[in-house]
Amino acid sequence: MRMVDLIEKKRDGHVLTEEEIQFIVSGYTSGDIPDYQMSALLMAIFYKDMTDEEITTLTLAMANSGEMIDLSSIQGIKVDKHSTGGVGDTTTLILAPLVASVGVSVAKMSGRGLGYTGGTIDKLEAIPGFHVELPDEDFIRLVNESHVAVIGQSGDLAPADKKLYALRDVTATVDSIPLIASSIMSKKIAAGADAIVLDVTTGEGAFMKNIDQARRLAKTMVRIGHLANRQTMAVISDMSQPLGEAIGNSLEVVEAIETLQGNGPEDLLEMCYILGSQMVVLAKKAETLDEARAMLKEALESGKALAKFCEMIKNQGGDASVIDHPESLLTAQYEIELPAKASGTVQKIVANEIGIAAMLLGAGRATKEDSIDHAVGIKLHKKVGMPVTEGEALLTIYANTESIDHVKELLYKNIEIGSSGTEPELIHDIITA
Amino acid sequence: MRMVDLIEKKRDGHVLTEEEIQFIVSGYTSGDIPDYQMSALLMAIFYKDMTDEEITTLTLAMANSGEMIDLSSIQGIKVDKHSTGGVGDTTTLILAPLVASVGVSVAKMSGRGLGYTGGTIDKLEAIPGFHVELPDEDFIRLVNESHVAVIGQSGDLAPADKKLYALRDVTATVDSIPLIASSIMSKKIAAGADAIVLDVTTGEGAFMKNIDQARRLAKTMVRIGHLANRQTMAVISDMSQPLGEAIGNSLEVVEAIETLQGNGPEDLLEMCYILGSQMVVLAKKAETLDEARAMLKEALESGKALAKFCEMIKNQGGDASVIDHPESLLTAQYEIELPAKASGTVQKIVANEIGIAAMLLGAGRATKEDSIDHAVGIKLHKKVGMPVTEGEALLTIYANTESIDHVKELLYKNIEIGSSGTEPELIHDIITA
Repeated sequence: MRMVDLIEKKRDGHVLTEEEIQFIVSGYTSGDIPDYQMSALLMAIFYKDMTDEEITTLTLAMANSGEMIDLSSIQGIKVDKHSTGGVGDTTTLILAPLVASVGVSVAKMSGRGLGYTGGTIDKLEAIPGFHVELPDEDFIRLVNESHVAVIGQSGDLAPADKKLYALRDVTATVDSIPLIASSIMSKKIAAGADAIVLDVTTGEGAFMKNIDQARRLAKTMVRIGHLANRQTMAVISDMSQPLGEAIGNSLEVVEAIETLQGNGPEDLLEMCYILGSQMVVLAKKAETLDEARAMLKEALESGKALAKFCEMIKNQGGDASVIDHPESLLTAQYEIELPAKASGTVQKIVANEIGIAAMLLGAGRATKEDSIDHAVGIKLHKKVGMPVTEGEALLTIYANTESIDHVKELLYKNIEIGSSGTEPELIHDIITA
Repeated sequence: MRMVDLIEKKRDGHVLTEEEIQFIVSGYTSGDIPDYQMSALLMAIFYKDMTDEEITTLTLAMANSGEMIDLSSIQGIKVDKHSTGGVGDTTTLILAPLVASVGVSVAKMSGRGLGYTGGTIDKLEAIPGFHVELPDEDFIRLVNESHVAVIGQSGDLAPADKKLYALRDVTATVDSIPLIASSIMSKKIAAGADAIVLDVTTGEGAFMKNIDQARRLAKTMVRIGHLANRQTMAVISDMSQPLGEAIGNSLEVVEAIETLQGNGPEDLLEMCYILGSQMVVLAKKAETLDEARAMLKEALESGKALAKFCEMIKNQGGDASVIDHPESLLTAQYEIELPAKASGTVQKIVANEIGIAAMLLGAGRATKEDSIDHAVGIKLHKKVGMPVTEGEALLTIYANTESIDHVKELLYKNIEIGSSGTEPELIHDIITA
């Protein structure tokens, strides 16, 4: 088999066989197939797409290219949740203890990742003492005892995907549904999940800018999941404005605690109920979504979910006093309010630009080598559809420098106040097949 | 400027600017742009094409990437001729002395190249003593004195094209009109031609399998030529069966001599008149094609053209006695006739497969490292449209081994005898703008 013939085959729109895709993935992982042939193939895939069977084979070949986490010694159905990314997306911090508190096993591997704020791992590290590097046996023991543990992603998980992703990034082949879908699903499958809940975000703060694209990606991933014998469903959620109010690592931990205390933003809580209910049903802890939601509501209102978060923090060496004193996490040197320049209704808060503002403050990484400042970020006081009067605070900036004029300017440019504005739908669609 | 942004721009079907294309070519030539980005761009070009302006910029940037031959010290208009390749294509050996004998300056750089038989350089080297490596000043002096010299292509001619071609070959991006056109034209322009006659072959023995593709390639190259201020025209010729009767290096030299003596195959001679007339007109040695053809006919019939070939051979150190004793070149150990298995009319001689048969005998190179056996090849006695009786020789095989059963089998498989067959049109179209 010659790689050049396989490139030509895909270039001309033909379907690659299982054997051919496995040849490609193993050859690329071992270095036998050079980057310059792989990038030509990636561009051909960009134009010619892949069938569900091809994407599934690609996904499984990438999942099998390195370590496959074996979670079989954890009782019950292990449910993973993945978001395609957003701004102020605190859901994992809340969902992990929330669903664990009703008996769903959450054995979560998370990334650090590049972006506006840190990944879930970075956020958890905002809690003093919390550590995310656990030996596999401790990880499994904790999930068996306590139903929840969150650790950093192993370096050898789906190495083919890691190598491919780096190549896609420099060859303009990132925006390809089959490549995005196989990248996400290969990591979820290698991480050992039995069932997967996908949150496919859409809007200006998301990777998928429009709903049609998001729907295609969601459908593709759900089909791959089924073909790979993983229960999979996807929620298409709105990310035109940030989710919740907090954008920044410590700020989002505080917001998670407040939400588990019953004092969080409504949109964030609703999102957690929607995703959480799906997880509970997939884990077969409830028959229907309504039943699942009632269980989660009870767990939250009774304090069980908050107690589970407290237990999780202690289990992983963290200082659980943050539960009672979340304000202790807010250590930024400056808290600066941004006053509205006019009265009216908030019409638009451009999510990705607000995310960039948080990153400029130091909350996220532009390159892998950057370090994160957990303390900084943005807390929104007004969201789309809310009335505001001139001079009233739109948001508070948490910064460790006073030189933030460029951040203020960016924020003003991306928050529109007008005569009317409507809160966007939180969920655009639910894809189960 | 970042290469990834330029890949994305072309990927999305936009037009690259002159500055962007120059950045790409100079970055790739210097090694600053890696192969894996270039191959992604090549695949995007494969799908999204380029405008004539883009192709022209690419062509000139590649021509300028290395040595530019300066032929300005040669008097008159220097006309080059290029064929996109065929089987048994002896035209250059005949055309060079033929048009030189009517006063057109032919300063020809030729390649060795891969393929069924050698390039023009390999064929000339079948003449004992003929050498093709001349210092630039000798080359120019010979053309000024004698109107004709043929030398091997300098290694540093259009190095960007050389590097790109090697990459295209392993990334399934060879079959792209803008890339083929810019590759050919960059070498012609770097080699210093003022005017260019292109022979775009079409049919099974050619790179362009159908006439539409050939026409598109021809039009593209003619437009590039004009935009680059080179008088350029193209003939679209038939290569469904081999041109002339000889396929093989020495055999083609013999055929060239016979043609210049007035005893060559009709189709080959006609092709030389057609291409030669165009060269004479572009060199402004005649007003009309008819006038040019009459001049060439007179030169051939009077023996002037043959005398010029003799002079050219002597000038470059070759043994001119081959002119009077061409049979001295036929040194293959075995001459084996291939008898027809049935009576009828020759319906088809699949050019590329006949070429492969010649290559299997040793007439061509499959890889750059292969050496060529000048003596071997095939001489056709029957061409499409000719009647044949069972047992009559279809062709003679010139071989240096008796183990040629696989060659015979291949030849039989690709020569069809049936109830009727028509000689194909030699010229499908002429493109001047």
